[in-house]
Amino acid sequence: MMIGQGFDAHRFAPAGTGRPLWVAGLHWPVPENADSTVAARFEGIEGDSDGDVAAHALIDALLSAAGLGDIGSLFGVGADAHGAGMHGVDMLHETVGHLAQHGYKPTSASVVIVGNRPKIGTRRTEAEAVLSEAIGCRVSVTATTTDHMGFTGRDEGIAAIANALVTCTD
Amino acid sequence: MMIGQGFDAHRFAPAGTGRPLWVAGLHWPVPENADSTVAARFEGIEGDSDGDVAAHALIDALLSAAGLGDIGSLFGVGADAHGAGMHGVDMLHETVGHLAQHGYKPTSASVVIVGNRPKIGTRRTEAEAVLSEAIGCRVSVTATTTDHMGFTGRDEGIAAIANALVTCTD
Amino acid sequence: MMIGQGFDAHRFAPAGTGRPLWVAGLHWPVPENADSTVAARFEGIEGDSDGDVAAHALIDALLSAAGLGDIGSLFGVGADAHGAGMHGVDMLHETVGHLAQHGYKPTSASVVIVGNRPKIGTRRTEAEAVLSEAIGCRVSVTATTTDHMGFTGRDEGIAAIANALVTCTD
Repeated sequence: MMIGQGFDAHRFAPAGTGRPLWVAGLHWPVPENADSTVAARFEGIEGDSDGDVAAHALIDALLSAAGLGDIGSLFGVGADAHGAGMHGVDMLHETVGHLAQHGYKPTSASVVIVGNRPKIGTRRTEAEAVLSEAIGCRVSVTATTTDHMGFTGRDEGIAAIANALVTCTD
Repeated sequence: MMIGQGFDAHRFAPAGTGRPLWVAGLHWPVPENADSTVAARFEGIEGDSDGDVAAHALIDALLSAAGLGDIGSLFGVGADAHGAGMHGVDMLHETVGHLAQHGYKPTSASVVIVGNRPKIGTRRTEAEAVLSEAIGCRVSVTATTTDHMGFTGRDEGIAAIANALVTCTD
Repeated sequence: MMIGQGFDAHRFAPAGTGRPLWVAGLHWPVPENADSTVAARFEGIEGDSDGDVAAHALIDALLSAAGLGDIGSLFGVGADAHGAGMHGVDMLHETVGHLAQHGYKPTSASVVIVGNRPKIGTRRTEAEAVLSEAIGCRVSVTATTTDHMGFTGRDEGIAAIANALVTCTD
């Protein structure tokens, strides 16, 4: 049994960009009839992929546990990269396939999402179901804020810390 | 064997509030004859419970490892919540009882406390004894600062990162 | 099997200090013919040792997993400490020897380095080889930035989050 650690942080897109918000494998749509203040809280995350920090932190935790590099070595970096435009869940699927090719299987994973928004607690079990299905083992999701301290507390962006266990399939 | 990740951060109460400081399962009393500068370093942490970030990060790590939600789903959120006013050690006891009801037992846990104060190193073994007794397995406690960088470095607050392993008791 | 968590953060030395940069067990020399702007990106890290946050976070993860204190209790704190002036890899060697004396052996470890520089990805496999040799089991290294947010994003310093598993050798 081997252990991996993952971390990721991304900046929210400026208000008015209209970029869709994806976190923890879920799309967080702007509520109907939302005024501009509410809508701004559903602005998406910057990045070449969908910016799903929870998925990205889990990918690094899984790749680390298997000793198979990191998200940059598997998906590339930048707008022309293999992973550009991919959703976090699809990247997780591909990551687990990559592990399987090398004789590894995830057995347990966990991610903490740190930020003011979206309110993960309202859809936590849904996020766990989507991420667990993508990885093929139980994935736990928790979320917390930083009491208005630091870049997550100032609503500049969102971060995620993940860990994972993998075993050999041979 | 399943793994969980936990994180928590809380803001120190303003100087003069007189709120007691609880971290890592311990009360950190203001030293006798302390002047106001020294006393300010023993000001407590804001929050509806005692604000013990180390205990809270451990709770999320344990609940995640067992797939049983998070501190918010078990203890509620806000001044009227079930966990309001509770000490971290009592919350840990209840968490482990919740795990036992669902057939899980912690086997190992660890927490890093990040902040300028209190000086955990002076009472590290005491903290480990209290937290280990609460959880029923060895809990390791380490502490570090951020060299005056970020919100912990500016003494605005304190953070903790935890991980844990649990097994099934069946 | 027991788990440990580690974290460390250090500040970059001011430009012009000429302090060598050590991260993830590697020396990162200033490129030949570098102008002052490029050279500043290879300025070292402040601290009594070489300031290698990745090695230090791994040391705390290993000591925590074995229940043997933390980097401060093993190497001391300050310019007169036992660990003053030591390189991270040498500290890791000593840490693993300390574990062995107490009947513990690392089986798996992982570290995420968070910062703008150096560009870990360019020498990731080299770093993994050096750290794995020091610890005696596979160590995975990943790296990420924080999109110009927070103290790592403002290039003030560098941080690392690590986890580890150890077993008893008896």
